[in-house]
Amino acid sequence: MLPIREMAAWSAASYFPPVAQKQAAINKQRVVAKPYAGYFSLDMEIPTSAARALQHGPMKAEEALTPSEADLNRLISEDYHTPDQGYAVLEGLTTYVQSRVVMPGVTTEVFRWWFTWHPLEHERYTLWFPHAHIANSVADPSRLADTSLTYEERLYGNPNRVRELVGSNELDINIRFMAPEELGFDPKRLAAAGFTASASGLVGHGDHPDAVMSMMVHLARDTNAGLELISRYWIGGHPALRRFPGSEHTLDGLKAAGFNEAIVLGAAYELALHDTLEFNHLAKILPLLHARFA
Amino acid sequence: MLPIREMAAWSAASYFPPVAQKQAAINKQRVVAKPYAGYFSLDMEIPTSAARALQHGPMKAEEALTPSEADLNRLISEDYHTPDQGYAVLEGLTTYVQSRVVMPGVTTEVFRWWFTWHPLEHERYTLWFPHAHIANSVADPSRLADTSLTYEERLYGNPNRVRELVGSNELDINIRFMAPEELGFDPKRLAAAGFTASASGLVGHGDHPDAVMSMMVHLARDTNAGLELISRYWIGGHPALRRFPGSEHTLDGLKAAGFNEAIVLGAAYELALHDTLEFNHLAKILPLLHARFA
Repeated sequence: MLPIREMAAWSAASYFPPVAQKQAAINKQRVVAKPYAGYFSLDMEIPTSAARALQHGPMKAEEALTPSEADLNRLISEDYHTPDQGYAVLEGLTTYVQSRVVMPGVTTEVFRWWFTWHPLEHERYTLWFPHAHIANSVADPSRLADTSLTYEERLYGNPNRVRELVGSNELDINIRFMAPEELGFDPKRLAAAGFTASASGLVGHGDHPDAVMSMMVHLARDTNAGLELISRYWIGGHPALRRFPGSEHTLDGLKAAGFNEAIVLGAAYELALHDTLEFNHLAKILPLLHARFA
Repeated sequence: MLPIREMAAWSAASYFPPVAQKQAAINKQRVVAKPYAGYFSLDMEIPTSAARALQHGPMKAEEALTPSEADLNRLISEDYHTPDQGYAVLEGLTTYVQSRVVMPGVTTEVFRWWFTWHPLEHERYTLWFPHAHIANSVADPSRLADTSLTYEERLYGNPNRVRELVGSNELDINIRFMAPEELGFDPKRLAAAGFTASASGLVGHGDHPDAVMSMMVHLARDTNAGLELISRYWIGGHPALRRFPGSEHTLDGLKAAGFNEAIVLGAAYELALHDTLEFNHLAKILPLLHARFA
């Protein structure tokens, strides 16, 4: 029988498609003159356990959560248990990704700082995922930068326009961050579960910002080990997304564009890896960036 | 500035496309009843240095070798130095990959045993790369198994019909292993450089076995650290491949199939990763397989 090689807790990311390798080289040049250039690193690592968790096929759809209000609140309930990483194809040609990342040295305050600091310069956004992030800007930069306002006042209703690679595909999306209760979370349950920060919202296309292509959930709470970040993505025409105006044409659009189960499965896997890479990388750089630039 | 995370020498492979994850599950079932089932492992690792070597874009074409006779002999000359891993796009829409892997505990004898043992059962081939290898068979199995013959008599002129995934693409190819001198190597120089084993040849399509789609070189020699394996792949319509009958239509075929530089670049990167994964994995299992089944 095979001996098991003792593996370290962290592994180098072993795959970046050529278009991402090219973007990394471009981004490296873009940040050179920035004061945060020293925090731009192409050495991305993920937990070995996370790498392996995503190698054994998709989750069964019935083990995934839907974007229904009931399932959102199940996500934050104490008796909900699920693997940290997973991906699946749900009905309505829906890409589903789940993840949980603990970020040592990161707090609610640091998390909030990141989401109000990085969208003010495209190059800051590249620090987060140097191979994949191209540009991020915000509708009202001065509001985002206004420290006299709360995090929620700065971020909500102030959409992010994001260009990034997921796998080899370049996305141009509009993220409308909003209060979790607008998505269907019960604020009392959120508070009871200790969630203190959110970067959640509805996502449309860059050129059709009010279309609802997907819902994205990033909920965070402080723990002794660092910030615990719980993420979920639903991209597609899931029936439970129909409660949001702007979702009416999503499924037809996917069908017209030739999407099928195999394509959605590939997209789900690529997004799961993307999420794992970007949040583990952010965990590495964020405490240092905050200490230097906050 | 960022502290550098001290990385272990080995990293878990972090990317297997969904079709490969599915193949891995199928292959796992196929080997269950085989005596070598215990050597089937989905935990694939590559040297951290190899993972990172392939993340910074392709080599310049002028730094790669061509499949010319002159460059083949340059490959085995003492004063030729090049990175262990690399990929590039060469003229004629040619995919180019180079690699060097040292396999501790593997010798010339073990290497030869592998290439005469594994093609006798499809399932043995899956041990080598459980996510990507589907089937391998040989034109004349009894000749391949005949231990009264030399390695060369068993393997040469006895083509392998291989089905495997490279990235997400399933290939159906016919490998004609042949003496290195038939490819253009100078046998005196090979001997002087200490190369004692080869699994090199010309590759056609499964249904067009005599077409020359590519040349593949695997040359090996014993070192104190284990078997040193030097590999090169040229897939496409490179002018220097035109010396081989059967190469006449390769370039036109690639153009007719819509191949372009970007596609070839992607193919080269996928093949480079595939090679790194499969030979590092083979290095792990081969000494144990040989000890048990030779």
